[in-house]
Amino acid sequence: MTVKAPARNERVADAPVDRLFLDRWSPRAFSPEPIAGETLRTLFEAARWAPSCFNEQPWVFIYSGTEEDRLRILDVLTERNQVWAKNAPVLALLFARRTFRKTGRPNRWAAFDCGAAWMSLTVQARFLGLYTHAMAGYRRDRAYQAAGIPEEEYEVICAIAIGRYGDPEDLPGEIRASEFPKDRKPLAEVAVAGQWPEGRV
Amino acid sequence: MTVKAPARNERVADAPVDRLFLDRWSPRAFSPEPIAGETLRTLFEAARWAPSCFNEQPWVFIYSGTEEDRLRILDVLTERNQVWAKNAPVLALLFARRTFRKTGRPNRWAAFDCGAAWMSLTVQARFLGLYTHAMAGYRRDRAYQAAGIPEEEYEVICAIAIGRYGDPEDLPGEIRASEFPKDRKPLAEVAVAGQWPEGRV
Repeated sequence: MTVKAPARNERVADAPVDRLFLDRWSPRAFSPEPIAGETLRTLFEAARWAPSCFNEQPWVFIYSGTEEDRLRILDVLTERNQVWAKNAPVLALLFARRTFRKTGRPNRWAAFDCGAAWMSLTVQARFLGLYTHAMAGYRRDRAYQAAGIPEEEYEVICAIAIGRYGDPEDLPGEIRASEFPKDRKPLAEVAVAGQWPEGRV
Repeated sequence: MTVKAPARNERVADAPVDRLFLDRWSPRAFSPEPIAGETLRTLFEAARWAPSCFNEQPWVFIYSGTEEDRLRILDVLTERNQVWAKNAPVLALLFARRTFRKTGRPNRWAAFDCGAAWMSLTVQARFLGLYTHAMAGYRRDRAYQAAGIPEEEYEVICAIAIGRYGDPEDLPGEIRASEFPKDRKPLAEVAVAGQWPEGRV
């Protein structure tokens, strides 16, 4: 069954913008329909070409290739996220390398660069009609264990659900009630010409 | 004069991907041709709709609306970056709010979320034929001063140059020699199904 995702709803642009950005949102109603391995490779390929400080490419995506992998990553999530993420056909954990390979010095742009890679993945997903949802709700210690990645070298950044849109009716009531694209602050609050207005916090 | 930007060069995709990602790169040869204010608004509008932890939208872009602004931000950059960034018609500084507005607690996803906003801006820029270049080479103390933004509340993340592609012949020899799109690690190194290979660093 194909369920139409909620439309742009109340989202109103403050300036003309490609509809890609208005149509993208982070749903919780995922369809369990599998995603082909080659499609997943295309998503990570987009992330691969993201820019990064000194071209360090600090990102590492550990993703579910099998149902066993998927359940291992699902178990990393908070229970609140497991409730809906259990339906997502693909789950991933994103890690950032803490230091630059060449110098060994701390990379203070690693998380920022991971954000660029994650957004590239998401844009490519949208081109293919897929949805993504990044989560901060996970258990850090379990993330390192599940991914088998050394915490000394890598920092867990987020968990990610990937898939097609599902049926919001399958969501528990509390979650279903917030299953719509959220609004944003006015443009003038996040992009300021000149200098930050004195006294604004 | 319109100068054609270097082509994809040696960039070879490891998996099929939208050419947007292969064609995007961070040049240093910018044309000083001005960017219309409404075009800039469109770029920041794309950033505005990026996803963020708890929809906090921790990003703040302080950008040059006037030549005076532009020179103020240019002065924040390291001399090495000033050499080429002086030609970019628009310069910006990206800041992340350190804490969540609702709870006052530290936002450990702020830089990551800023990366998503920055990549959204960049994708929208590519849709309009523009280029962007994020820089880690800036003086932190000067960034806060130039933007007039309180360091206690906001963390400087990067500087950004925005504009049309210029003439690489205008670049000093050393910089001109590296004016081409850079390669990336193999896909298999940054996207791993299952678990991180034991012993890999």
